[in-house]
Amino acid sequence: MQELIKKLKDIQSELTDLGHAASVMGWDQVTYMPQGGAEDRGNALATLSKIIHMKTTDPAIGEMLEELEPHIAQLDPDSDDARWFKVTKRGYDKQTRMPVDFIMRWTKETSIAQMKWQEARQKSDFSIFQPNLETIVELAKEGSSFFTPYDHIYDPLLDMYEPGMKTADVKKIFEALRPVQVEIIQAIKDSPQVDDSFLNTTFPKQGQWDFGMELLEAIGFDLNRGRQDYSAHPFTSGFSINDVRITTRIAEDDLISGMMSTLHEGGHGLYEMGYNPAYSRNALHGAASLSVHESQSRMWENLIGRSLPFWRKFYPRLQSYFPTQLGNVTVEQFYRAVNKVEPSLIRVEADEATYNLHIMLRLEIELGLIEGKIKVAELPEYWNDTMHSFLGITPPNDAMGVLQDVHWSHGLFGYFSTYALGNLVSVQLWDVMNQQIDDIDGKIEKGEFGEILQWLRDNIHVHGSKYEPQELIEKVTGSKIDPQPYVNYLKQKYGQIYGF
Amino acid sequence: MQELIKKLKDIQSELTDLGHAASVMGWDQVTYMPQGGAEDRGNALATLSKIIHMKTTDPAIGEMLEELEPHIAQLDPDSDDARWFKVTKRGYDKQTRMPVDFIMRWTKETSIAQMKWQEARQKSDFSIFQPNLETIVELAKEGSSFFTPYDHIYDPLLDMYEPGMKTADVKKIFEALRPVQVEIIQAIKDSPQVDDSFLNTTFPKQGQWDFGMELLEAIGFDLNRGRQDYSAHPFTSGFSINDVRITTRIAEDDLISGMMSTLHEGGHGLYEMGYNPAYSRNALHGAASLSVHESQSRMWENLIGRSLPFWRKFYPRLQSYFPTQLGNVTVEQFYRAVNKVEPSLIRVEADEATYNLHIMLRLEIELGLIEGKIKVAELPEYWNDTMHSFLGITPPNDAMGVLQDVHWSHGLFGYFSTYALGNLVSVQLWDVMNQQIDDIDGKIEKGEFGEILQWLRDNIHVHGSKYEPQELIEKVTGSKIDPQPYVNYLKQKYGQIYGF
Repeated sequence: MQELIKKLKDIQSELTDLGHAASVMGWDQVTYMPQGGAEDRGNALATLSKIIHMKTTDPAIGEMLEELEPHIAQLDPDSDDARWFKVTKRGYDKQTRMPVDFIMRWTKETSIAQMKWQEARQKSDFSIFQPNLETIVELAKEGSSFFTPYDHIYDPLLDMYEPGMKTADVKKIFEALRPVQVEIIQAIKDSPQVDDSFLNTTFPKQGQWDFGMELLEAIGFDLNRGRQDYSAHPFTSGFSINDVRITTRIAEDDLISGMMSTLHEGGHGLYEMGYNPAYSRNALHGAASLSVHESQSRMWENLIGRSLPFWRKFYPRLQSYFPTQLGNVTVEQFYRAVNKVEPSLIRVEADEATYNLHIMLRLEIELGLIEGKIKVAELPEYWNDTMHSFLGITPPNDAMGVLQDVHWSHGLFGYFSTYALGNLVSVQLWDVMNQQIDDIDGKIEKGEFGEILQWLRDNIHVHGSKYEPQELIEKVTGSKIDPQPYVNYLKQKYGQIYGF
Repeated sequence: MQELIKKLKDIQSELTDLGHAASVMGWDQVTYMPQGGAEDRGNALATLSKIIHMKTTDPAIGEMLEELEPHIAQLDPDSDDARWFKVTKRGYDKQTRMPVDFIMRWTKETSIAQMKWQEARQKSDFSIFQPNLETIVELAKEGSSFFTPYDHIYDPLLDMYEPGMKTADVKKIFEALRPVQVEIIQAIKDSPQVDDSFLNTTFPKQGQWDFGMELLEAIGFDLNRGRQDYSAHPFTSGFSINDVRITTRIAEDDLISGMMSTLHEGGHGLYEMGYNPAYSRNALHGAASLSVHESQSRMWENLIGRSLPFWRKFYPRLQSYFPTQLGNVTVEQFYRAVNKVEPSLIRVEADEATYNLHIMLRLEIELGLIEGKIKVAELPEYWNDTMHSFLGITPPNDAMGVLQDVHWSHGLFGYFSTYALGNLVSVQLWDVMNQQIDDIDGKIEKGEFGEILQWLRDNIHVHGSKYEPQELIEKVTGSKIDPQPYVNYLKQKYGQIYGF
């Protein structure tokens, strides 16, 4: 048995290295690559993907898994080897159930769709993208069909990003959450708006960058094992636990955005640095799921980075970078500004209180399309109507509405929910952490993040993908993903800021 | 036939992509990678090398080549397909003649030797490295043995870097060159030294960087298809003709070094950008040889970048970056300072007049070791004696003598000569170019480099590795590599500067 396990792990080890190569190329592509290099880089990445796919779906792996199965059944099901086997088998299944012909059509159609989406968004004309999206919806349904039996046709799509999570679970969570979030937003609307007019000025780039680097170091992002660079769209890429790259973007007229992006990606980065080194070259390496990943970024960005104790510590430093702009602004004023709620059209710019509603809209649409209850042609109208009912605002055009996200053009159905679930998980974890660590607020106010990070390391990071997300969250918090803690958090925080 | 050719080119295309991946990782490793990432990067690169090696030496390639041979024999031997076949076969031969067991021993021993060399250099103690170098010499001889028959046991080593070049050719060239170079250096020594005391001050980094970028753009380095970054040791890496990375290093107390490194790597970079796009994904992509590559870097660095017309154009710009340091220095004074000759111990810091002698010393040692006429144990003494006879100076320790270069620890026997040959080739090409383009000096003085670059593109760059180096140089200049033009150049230039 040990020999077979070793053989499989050797294959995974090779795949780790090839994935490392692809990640470095992907990172370089959006940070430093000169424009002219795009086509050749595309070719190189395509070749690498092809090799990775071939090695991942090698029938020999299937045979080894089959041979191993009875031996693994003898092990403690919670042992690393048993869990490793489960995750390996799950991955192999996912990769091999879809026929090569389907994957090739998928790759081709989504690559065309991406160009069409770009054109459509540029011209703010949904009809340009409509036929491609129709094709993709059909492909998504076909993709699901390879994973029968399922409870719901959307389940296999969701499962790509949230192993084990069911459509029914997400619907139930979102149904409980939506009315309360709408209610909170209404209460905020009925309250006097926060004054953040002092932010309507210019904050030179270098100061923002330097302050961001200070924050990264303060929260424990190890610059010997990672770095931050610029890119158009901030992201995190862990080449390994010892080399984690995050990126940010900085706008001189938007102080909050760059700072929060740094904390957000920093949170993702800390997760990537924290996986069990013993898993580094096998299938247990990596996040439990996208929602768990997002819970980490959201915790550092929102629960810590938008808290009053955090700014009691760091606001004087920020003032020292921008004395003319912030010299006369108190930390309380700044804290309120950082937490200003304002329903907006664009998801990626949404605040904590409204963000989840953007996600719910997308889930409704995806379910409607996959279930066949909404037609692609009806999307712009559906989008605008729902936006109005959720947030009381209506997009002036499709570019700011249904065309705003790149995801569907990539075929990423089932992905969006993980953003909202991550928000919920972040607060669930936070509440438990607060029961287990004394005076977290006091520690944050002193800039001491060591215990928080260690708690996350021990309870979340170190497990890699050993547990399914619901399992992991239940293990740590005693319950599965649950909207209530998040609702309480929003009510308490925004009730205090907006006085309702 | 066309089908077989296509099949082989498809394999080369895949290898191009894998090479691209390895190059990106290699570049990142020395530019941006955080320290902690070293081990994982090493693993990833090793896996990629292994896959590349397996695909390069696949016996199926050998079979296809054999099947193709009679068909290719019908073609014009100068046609792209015939040349492509020749280069492909040559490469396959080189890769497959060495048994896997030998390659594994080679890889292992050189990797140990690199660590030992580092320690030896740090402690300036040759005896630490001696046993490893002995092993490497034996391995180099064994490596040669797989390429019998040969005229000289050193031929196969040289051929790795200079296809078609023989030991006898290089010896003949160097023997003609050495006495004249020694004589020139003596004449310089007997003349009053150039005054460059105004350089003994500080030149802030940012100004040096900005000026270097101006130079790069001026000579035609396309920043849409390339970029410059910092690294400890400057180098050039072409991921493709559309993405060429060069690096530089800048010292605030050494204005000349960083500038010249930028022009040097810029010259390499222009070559990498200039290969025929039709060759991009097959065996004809790449330099004819290392000496031809070096001829390009040396031309831009020395023949152009250390010329008076060049500085007539750019010196006012340089003064504007450093007005306090250079405001009272004339362009003629600066020109003389840039060309100051001073025998020194370290090859990489050597000037134009002494550089080749450093190389000749190394060739003598390599030949002596491979022929068995010198023992590794005798190297420190041999080195110091020869340095004294060539340059009149003696290293105070091994670190500044026999241990200064990394090459031998990597097993790179046969490599050094290409540096000196490149110097010779640069002047041979320069002379022909001057016959074919009117008033090159005048154009340089106006900062017009378009015709020079176009000439290099048409005569050298575009051919990629279609021709062997000697063939290519003969095609362009009418003769093979010849030391006479270089000698004339040195005499004329330094005679004028030093007045002999």
